[in-house]
Amino acid sequence: MNFCSDNTSIACDAILQNIIRVNNDPAMPYGDDMVTARVEQDFKKIFDCDLAMLPVATGTAANVLALSVYCPSHGAILCHQESHINVDECGAPELYTGGAKLVPFNGVGSKLCPLELENYLSQGWAGNVHNMQPAVISITQASESGTIYTINEVKAISEICKKHDLKLHMDGARFANALVGLNCNASDITWRAGVDILSFGATKNGAIAAEAVIFFDSLMAELAGFKRKRGGHLFSKMRFLSAQLEAYLKDNLWLENALHANQMAAKLFAGLSKANIKFRYPVAANELFIYLEKPIFIKLKDAGFSFYQYPLGGDDCYRLVTAWNTREDHVDMFIETIYNSR
Amino acid sequence: MNFCSDNTSIACDAILQNIIRVNNDPAMPYGDDMVTARVEQDFKKIFDCDLAMLPVATGTAANVLALSVYCPSHGAILCHQESHINVDECGAPELYTGGAKLVPFNGVGSKLCPLELENYLSQGWAGNVHNMQPAVISITQASESGTIYTINEVKAISEICKKHDLKLHMDGARFANALVGLNCNASDITWRAGVDILSFGATKNGAIAAEAVIFFDSLMAELAGFKRKRGGHLFSKMRFLSAQLEAYLKDNLWLENALHANQMAAKLFAGLSKANIKFRYPVAANELFIYLEKPIFIKLKDAGFSFYQYPLGGDDCYRLVTAWNTREDHVDMFIETIYNSR
Amino acid sequence: MNFCSDNTSIACDAILQNIIRVNNDPAMPYGDDMVTARVEQDFKKIFDCDLAMLPVATGTAANVLALSVYCPSHGAILCHQESHINVDECGAPELYTGGAKLVPFNGVGSKLCPLELENYLSQGWAGNVHNMQPAVISITQASESGTIYTINEVKAISEICKKHDLKLHMDGARFANALVGLNCNASDITWRAGVDILSFGATKNGAIAAEAVIFFDSLMAELAGFKRKRGGHLFSKMRFLSAQLEAYLKDNLWLENALHANQMAAKLFAGLSKANIKFRYPVAANELFIYLEKPIFIKLKDAGFSFYQYPLGGDDCYRLVTAWNTREDHVDMFIETIYNSR
Amino acid sequence: MNFCSDNTSIACDAILQNIIRVNNDPAMPYGDDMVTARVEQDFKKIFDCDLAMLPVATGTAANVLALSVYCPSHGAILCHQESHINVDECGAPELYTGGAKLVPFNGVGSKLCPLELENYLSQGWAGNVHNMQPAVISITQASESGTIYTINEVKAISEICKKHDLKLHMDGARFANALVGLNCNASDITWRAGVDILSFGATKNGAIAAEAVIFFDSLMAELAGFKRKRGGHLFSKMRFLSAQLEAYLKDNLWLENALHANQMAAKLFAGLSKANIKFRYPVAANELFIYLEKPIFIKLKDAGFSFYQYPLGGDDCYRLVTAWNTREDHVDMFIETIYNSR
Repeated sequence: MNFCSDNTSIACDAILQNIIRVNNDPAMPYGDDMVTARVEQDFKKIFDCDLAMLPVATGTAANVLALSVYCPSHGAILCHQESHINVDECGAPELYTGGAKLVPFNGVGSKLCPLELENYLSQGWAGNVHNMQPAVISITQASESGTIYTINEVKAISEICKKHDLKLHMDGARFANALVGLNCNASDITWRAGVDILSFGATKNGAIAAEAVIFFDSLMAELAGFKRKRGGHLFSKMRFLSAQLEAYLKDNLWLENALHANQMAAKLFAGLSKANIKFRYPVAANELFIYLEKPIFIKLKDAGFSFYQYPLGGDDCYRLVTAWNTREDHVDMFIETIYNSR
Repeated sequence: MNFCSDNTSIACDAILQNIIRVNNDPAMPYGDDMVTARVEQDFKKIFDCDLAMLPVATGTAANVLALSVYCPSHGAILCHQESHINVDECGAPELYTGGAKLVPFNGVGSKLCPLELENYLSQGWAGNVHNMQPAVISITQASESGTIYTINEVKAISEICKKHDLKLHMDGARFANALVGLNCNASDITWRAGVDILSFGATKNGAIAAEAVIFFDSLMAELAGFKRKRGGHLFSKMRFLSAQLEAYLKDNLWLENALHANQMAAKLFAGLSKANIKFRYPVAANELFIYLEKPIFIKLKDAGFSFYQYPLGGDDCYRLVTAWNTREDHVDMFIETIYNSR
Repeated sequence: MNFCSDNTSIACDAILQNIIRVNNDPAMPYGDDMVTARVEQDFKKIFDCDLAMLPVATGTAANVLALSVYCPSHGAILCHQESHINVDECGAPELYTGGAKLVPFNGVGSKLCPLELENYLSQGWAGNVHNMQPAVISITQASESGTIYTINEVKAISEICKKHDLKLHMDGARFANALVGLNCNASDITWRAGVDILSFGATKNGAIAAEAVIFFDSLMAELAGFKRKRGGHLFSKMRFLSAQLEAYLKDNLWLENALHANQMAAKLFAGLSKANIKFRYPVAANELFIYLEKPIFIKLKDAGFSFYQYPLGGDDCYRLVTAWNTREDHVDMFIETIYNSR
Repeated sequence: MNFCSDNTSIACDAILQNIIRVNNDPAMPYGDDMVTARVEQDFKKIFDCDLAMLPVATGTAANVLALSVYCPSHGAILCHQESHINVDECGAPELYTGGAKLVPFNGVGSKLCPLELENYLSQGWAGNVHNMQPAVISITQASESGTIYTINEVKAISEICKKHDLKLHMDGARFANALVGLNCNASDITWRAGVDILSFGATKNGAIAAEAVIFFDSLMAELAGFKRKRGGHLFSKMRFLSAQLEAYLKDNLWLENALHANQMAAKLFAGLSKANIKFRYPVAANELFIYLEKPIFIKLKDAGFSFYQYPLGGDDCYRLVTAWNTREDHVDMFIETIYNSR
């Protein structure tokens, strides 16, 4: 009964089946195959616009290709202190940009605060040769704390970007969970709200290893193509990445998977709230941050539940993550175990 | 009827089945799973030594992780002019080493000549602050021209490495084809011959996307671990990479696949030689470089064969690559088409 | 009447004369000259230990050579939010380390707080492949706010370094001013207090353009030598850098220059305090941070004084810097102008 | 009696005097001073065009700033095998470009051959994501072998640049010697012949440490400004760099210095030719490459002459370099010593 992370979950059967399907015939390598071409079309429909798309296998790869096309080596990327790019990628953005700087900001629930960004950007960095030049703002949707930026919140940040001539990147490792949580169109929370480039995740939501960089300015994909190869992320048999994305997008599988994960999180939230468990953040997607007394934590462990401590929240803070395949009976048992431990 | 490259081929059924098998249960992410642990043990048996192993998804990733643990940013990597790292990786070694230099050498059949290496290394670069410091020699086995280094040839180069305090890297994107061609043990052509680090390929020989960096000095894997993450190559669901490797190694699948590819190449060689087709290099593994008159080339195209021109060999030079699943009747038809075009 | 910065000041006559003196004869290039050898000996006497020394022309060059020998590309450098390396070097540390991360800390008076460092370092980064690995703590002496670390304060930080296996770098662009302020030996505030490597500044205190990287572990200078060349900082006619350092160190010129600057700062502090001017920080070296009402500021400008606003301190905060050649009558006039403007 | 290199020579008195002159007054730092502004105007007159100019202290710094504004990290710089950037800068171009590749070419007398360049560039690298993208051709004027490109030779290469959308860089560490050798205007051999960016050297020809990057497209200087700071090459007291350049350019000092050096080389050439000494290359500027029998070499050493062996030319090949201050009696004695040793 694993609530550690959505990346511990198995892959969707539909995705595996599509890999088997595209394996029937040889195909030209490095993305010159028909599956990859079809997936790009699928993305255009979903986002209701022209775009370019590069499939990669990890979220880190997606993020750094996205960031590096817009941030020069003397550039700065404004991001949340707790963001994945700042904390959990071992300097991948620094490597791919040639040594740019991530400028960390605080902000409630791992979300950037427009006021703080504006304050910082109006301090006169631009054009000053001594300072790294602000180039990109990066937001995570859904955030590392399981919170979600509303459309208006994204717009507020993209307006700051436009004012100061920056680009807006969205790390969408859990984009589907955010979209389901917002109940809006993919376009409304991205390019229509001012997002320039998106890391579109699938791995955490049912794929084996597949993400896509979505370029709303399709011309930037050419530069990213060189960076992808140079980073070692150009798959010779790329159709197997694309096959995962194809199945993921087909018949709204991605949204259904996310919906299930979010519903399981909501059920946990409802049950635990009744049990007077305190939450660090409101629950908007598929992550929950709860405070547990030690004896209760031990009982849960003993009952077979695994999940991580969350040190940023203090010694008694824990993170639960639900996934596309989280079983409802596990959720019920989790809540029940807590009730019984009182 | 595709002789373009072994990376256009489909994946082995056994490998796909193992992916499905490991998908039954959740598993801890980032390599803390049992499949990955098992595969490392498998490699230890195959290479008959202690070692460390990191799975990655592309040959470029394997090469650059291997090179970057041994070559500092002010270091030089001695390699063949035509080597994949020098020509076909868009500067990935330069990126991962922080700007090292690849010093290109000629040598018949894409193989490095010990004499030329020794000549270069005795020119007094070591310790001279103006010059990049020779740090690694990289050889490709089987080479980009389909030739193979014998055990003694590898030893001759590794002795130069020891004399000048360099490390020896083997790019084994087609390691199985080389091993079958040599008919020796994996250990004899690697660490027993002085190889320090190996890029072990599986993708071209039946996997979806799976390679392994083999560290014969297992301590170096720790440093490589940071570089792997930083490069965006640490898979959260790594068991799916390892599952490919596990199936690949099981019951000698990797050697059988390579044997078939090599046999098909040998058959092509025999048939085409009889037809007086000229070869650029002797055929030792699964690649053939042939000279074709234009009319014959056109007849082959018209008959449905696809394969690449090889500009390095001149306008009338072409490359044929056989794979684990090359059909014998396609080979027969290719030879026949040539006969009939005379 | 310029209080903008000590880097606007002219160079010392003694330093210019020594340049002219060493220009009498040709000399071998790239540091193989006798002046450079002599200066290294001078430093050994001053610091009362074996050491290695590399002359460079800018403080940024000194800092990044120092940092890059100890911080790998996946490393983290812990420093103050306001430190020169973090704010004013346009990413030079990131360039020379190959993309390391500067982790910014707050702390009163631009000085790092040991408790915050310890808190951060005990969060479990070490060995975790997702996180950049803390490698170096960098402190500025005298700090960007003109404050000074006491010997005990340096020792407290170096103990944290030892506990967590980090190295301690001291940015001594104003090292002489700090030493005079502390009234201690050069060794007591550096290697005896646990400093591993020092950027020793001369430019701000009377040189044309000369700094030195001081390696208390002299073995590290070899690696730095390659990085210096690679950075374009190896001067062919290096004796002209060394000549500046030689004159700077001779007959305590460096300490006398700093003493004058500090005394002028102290005099400003005394006079302005009497005039009820508020200070942001205590004045310990040659920088003062004061709050001025707009009308007073305008009167000072009109009287011919130039100095910078200090936005970090708010709209009414200004920085004054005294130098080795600051005229006492300028100081008197500054104080007088303020009195008269009331 | 030193013929080792022009960088062993002393500095010109006129240049030292100008340093002393600009030291009379304080000045704003980082290039916001009047000397730097004046020097840019001087360069505009000399090159008869609008341009931008950044002073730096080393030739390596000048070269890498020039290269890095035009070559992306996935780019290739085509240069001669023996060029300073390829052999003698310890990877500085690789560092500043973020890991670009230097593609080495042969060519008589260290000069690039247009035919070889065209052959290479027509091999289809452009747009191929596997290959580093040719971005810059770099030529050295005068070359590392003391030869000089004629105006037509530069034009032939710049036409190749235009055809393939590359930029042309000229490494002019010995630009004055080349110009005197050609007896043409500075503009004719640079921008009028298609050069986009020039490393303009002064150090070898009488300065202490001063070079300039000349941007014939002045817009590129802004980007270079960030790279200069980031490389640690932005001098706070930049007026002392500019003062050297100002004196160097004044009253044709630079050309007179170079004329003397070239004349001394010509005299050596004439005298040694009479003595039947063989030359590796024709003598066009201030470098000579000669073949000496061992006994003669020893007699020269014993007579007090110092100069380097030139291993590229074989065991009996030596390099002589004359400088702005080479004494004619030393030249006479050198020739005489050879005569007497027969």
